Amino acid sequence: MESSSLKIIPLGGCGEIGMNMTILCVMDRYFFIDAGALFPDASLLGVDLILPDTSYIDENHIQPDAWLITHGHEDHIGALSYLFKKYPAPIYGTEFTIELIKSKFEEADIFDAIFNTWGFFEPIYFRNMKVTVFPVNHSIADASGLFFETKLGNILHMGDFRIDYSPPEKSMTHKNVEKAIGNKSVTLMMSDSTNSFQIGTDMSEADVSPHIIDYLEKEKGIVIIATFASNIWRLQSVLEAAYLTGRKIVLFGRSLLKNTEIASRLGLLNFSQNIFIEMQDISKYPRHEICILCTGSQGESFAGLHRLAWNNVSEFKVDSEDTIIFSSRIIPGNEKPIENLITQFTRIGCQVITGRENKSIHVSGHGYQEDLITCINVAKPISFLPVHGTYRHLKKHREIAISCGIAPENSFLAENGDVVVVGPQIRGVVDTVVSGRDYVCPGGIFSQSSQIYKERVALIHGGVVAISLVFESNGYDIISEASVSLKGVPLDPKELTKKIPLIFKSVYEAVIKRRNFSEELLKEELRIAVRKYIEKRLNFKSNILILFQRI
Amino acid sequence: MESSSLKIIPLGGCGEIGMNMTILCVMDRYFFIDAGALFPDASLLGVDLILPDTSYIDENHIQPDAWLITHGHEDHIGALSYLFKKYPAPIYGTEFTIELIKSKFEEADIFDAIFNTWGFFEPIYFRNMKVTVFPVNHSIADASGLFFETKLGNILHMGDFRIDYSPPEKSMTHKNVEKAIGNKSVTLMMSDSTNSFQIGTDMSEADVSPHIIDYLEKEKGIVIIATFASNIWRLQSVLEAAYLTGRKIVLFGRSLLKNTEIASRLGLLNFSQNIFIEMQDISKYPRHEICILCTGSQGESFAGLHRLAWNNVSEFKVDSEDTIIFSSRIIPGNEKPIENLITQFTRIGCQVITGRENKSIHVSGHGYQEDLITCINVAKPISFLPVHGTYRHLKKHREIAISCGIAPENSFLAENGDVVVVGPQIRGVVDTVVSGRDYVCPGGIFSQSSQIYKERVALIHGGVVAISLVFESNGYDIISEASVSLKGVPLDPKELTKKIPLIFKSVYEAVIKRRNFSEELLKEELRIAVRKYIEKRLNFKSNILILFQRI
Repeated sequence: MESSSLKIIPLGGCGEIGMNMTILCVMDRYFFIDAGALFPDASLLGVDLILPDTSYIDENHIQPDAWLITHGHEDHIGALSYLFKKYPAPIYGTEFTIELIKSKFEEADIFDAIFNTWGFFEPIYFRNMKVTVFPVNHSIADASGLFFETKLGNILHMGDFRIDYSPPEKSMTHKNVEKAIGNKSVTLMMSDSTNSFQIGTDMSEADVSPHIIDYLEKEKGIVIIATFASNIWRLQSVLEAAYLTGRKIVLFGRSLLKNTEIASRLGLLNFSQNIFIEMQDISKYPRHEICILCTGSQGESFAGLHRLAWNNVSEFKVDSEDTIIFSSRIIPGNEKPIENLITQFTRIGCQVITGRENKSIHVSGHGYQEDLITCINVAKPISFLPVHGTYRHLKKHREIAISCGIAPENSFLAENGDVVVVGPQIRGVVDTVVSGRDYVCPGGIFSQSSQIYKERVALIHGGVVAISLVFESNGYDIISEASVSLKGVPLDPKELTKKIPLIFKSVYEAVIKRRNFSEELLKEELRIAVRKYIEKRLNFKSNILILFQRI
Repeated sequence: MESSSLKIIPLGGCGEIGMNMTILCVMDRYFFIDAGALFPDASLLGVDLILPDTSYIDENHIQPDAWLITHGHEDHIGALSYLFKKYPAPIYGTEFTIELIKSKFEEADIFDAIFNTWGFFEPIYFRNMKVTVFPVNHSIADASGLFFETKLGNILHMGDFRIDYSPPEKSMTHKNVEKAIGNKSVTLMMSDSTNSFQIGTDMSEADVSPHIIDYLEKEKGIVIIATFASNIWRLQSVLEAAYLTGRKIVLFGRSLLKNTEIASRLGLLNFSQNIFIEMQDISKYPRHEICILCTGSQGESFAGLHRLAWNNVSEFKVDSEDTIIFSSRIIPGNEKPIENLITQFTRIGCQVITGRENKSIHVSGHGYQEDLITCINVAKPISFLPVHGTYRHLKKHREIAISCGIAPENSFLAENGDVVVVGPQIRGVVDTVVSGRDYVCPGGIFSQSSQIYKERVALIHGGVVAISLVFESNGYDIISEASVSLKGVPLDPKELTKKIPLIFKSVYEAVIKRRNFSEELLKEELRIAVRKYIEKRLNFKSNILILFQRI
């Protein structure tokens, strides 16, 4: 690969929804765009968080010139506190984005980061590159797209976006794209594919507000609204609705408290402080004067909504007069826990409002087909790379781009690890590097294919049996009763204590005759023999640990 | 509870979709209706199958007079080979149902069962009870409803049903209900709530056929159709469609082969034998003359469809000209694996047809609201118990029954374990007994709340560290180097070997002073101390096994 090329290597977000991270290489300089995490679905027991695998960066000793962050959602900043430690570089982002990262870094005890807040339409110059940041409509404040100008070509990175025609951001995505690129040509456009299957365009964020007011006005009990804590526009709508309908607001959830504090400090959120009350003061008000804003719309078992459903809140109890509103979408993989939550509220007798009951209580932050088409038509790129989506989403978005007139040979389809070269010549995917997932687990970060993670999965299937034997200083005469301990194995340890000497004897007699006899071999053969004994006895494969001791 | 009552105790299927099992008690006699299993969703790592918890039966030393099985779906017979061993009794079912159970029992090496095939509208007499079996429309052959007549009251159990107005079964559910109950009154009606949220009625099973013919006719490559192996009507449609369009059929999946053999032996399935070819003969035909019928529509990792997607079939490779049809529904909890499967076929370049692309390639076997209402109106029951659904489904179905004129106080809402008394007086839920889930895991069947299962879950989160120490015959002088073995813990065992004597020393010195000193206490305190050491070192809680030996 020529060192003087302009290239893009997605390490996350292409072929999945979540953990967005892209390497941008301008000749000999590297920039990392976003550092997103993915939340494990219920099937990944024992995994707390998923990060992009960055072996490619390590193997090639790449150090970035900067981290360029488009916005503050977890799928764009969730991996940053982990990856910054390995790849320190100045961090660039808009004001709200930087505040969210700072708060994340504080929790992770990182105090040596250099933060640079950049302003919309105030170009920043890096070695070999000029960057213009522009605002986009999205479900978080201060979301941005990036326009990179280099002498090898210009790249338009849309970030996560939709077009909102009565935008809380006060300006519309496509108009900002127009302004950012001016009369420059766009060599490559990278665009968000999350909703590439959705026809038309979604309602405005502003259209949600009357529906929330409606519920707050007509319901007789407490109204509990679950939403994403970073959706400042939605929080603003709820605060206004509560004000208009004479309800007090209880914020329930650490991230809600944090984000509200930051957003109001930056002037993004406007409210009178006396609208808030504390959870313990709920009983001082009639129930129809209370609105609880909480986290946990995905059914997370430690979040606010879950605790309310199962009455793990000492201050008050949800009752059958109350209404629960999910002002959120279902993130794929969370269907079951969300359904369990809804069932539990139904069991209490509550009214539960989701997108099924009222489509207008949530809008997506990601553009539908019409939005995608509008932006492609404004940018008129020479080549196109759909990002942020599963393979099917990317493929659909590529088809949309072609229907907009982008040449098929310049409409790329790249998954994580694919190397896309667009300068000095537009060449598309020329190579593939290592990519994958790293799991943040109790005790460390392990690759999904690591021995450690495989061992843990084997343990849930087979439990564990530990056996210890003591030998004389020379030879293999057992001089003490075998000691046995087990977990997750339905067997009386005494049975094994009795059996082990016999199993050992026959293994030893077979192995000692072998030319390649060694203690390691003896241990391994004993492990296999005990495993076979348990398999014969209980019809399953357990995990066996053999400990030898010598006095 | 009076021993002379007529009562119903659901142990499964009420409050969930799956593992249907109901105890019917007629005075002093017990009958078990269905013995269904539930397939674990992806979150239940290490669980192979879920069965109803039957502690109530054990604690009350109940032995059933008979097992009464409504039809052969896994959520009605999947637990029978496990539960029959504990509660042996004659098994009653229709012909196809009994054949499916026999084949299950053979695999489970059960050879001492008494099977009784009962015919539709041929009453069977038990002690205290007369049973009339009637056919219902459902997505499996020989599905039945049951009408129980007793001197304390009559119970109508609908089984799983829909109404099909051009039924493959040749008769319609509600007409059969009418015939079965005659002029008798229905004290209690138990009815299937699976689709209680679906408005109207679904298409006929017969309406699927033209759509399948259409794909088989127009597609240029191999057409792969995934469906449930027990849906004999769907298999018949595909076989006919293949015949009409000149395609050969490959059956891929053990249960498909088994069910096709049984159904054709019983005359339920009609085809000319030469329509079938073997997988290895695919290459002898042009690809547009092949149709593969396979299992695995839920994304199961060992089933046919999964193997085709990831090219784990040696005989041929799926290519971009081929079409994959999901003639099936998504069972909740399987969204993610199904999406992965679709993505993989899309990556190959195949056309994938699901309910999203064409609503007419599958119909549900469970009645929509109109079907439920029609049957309630025909049966005119005095009381009503919705079964087969999550709490929300049951609640909705109860509302439907009330809208049909059933008295609200006689429209019950019972979850697993609730005791519903309907004779001699209609009393509704009077008590609750133990219910829950048993997990079939490698190595045994464990309650979901059992220590064994909890230990296994702890192991995937924390891995395991086994430590063995050797002491002199008296006292606690360590006379050999500590032996350490670990799994799933990112630590050098040598570090622990070095540390253990120090940790032991401080633990021993503290514990020996205690009045209640014992070896068990010493072991436990050492376990806690090692756990703390690892937590301090790696910030997570591991599982520690301590083995003491003495010479």
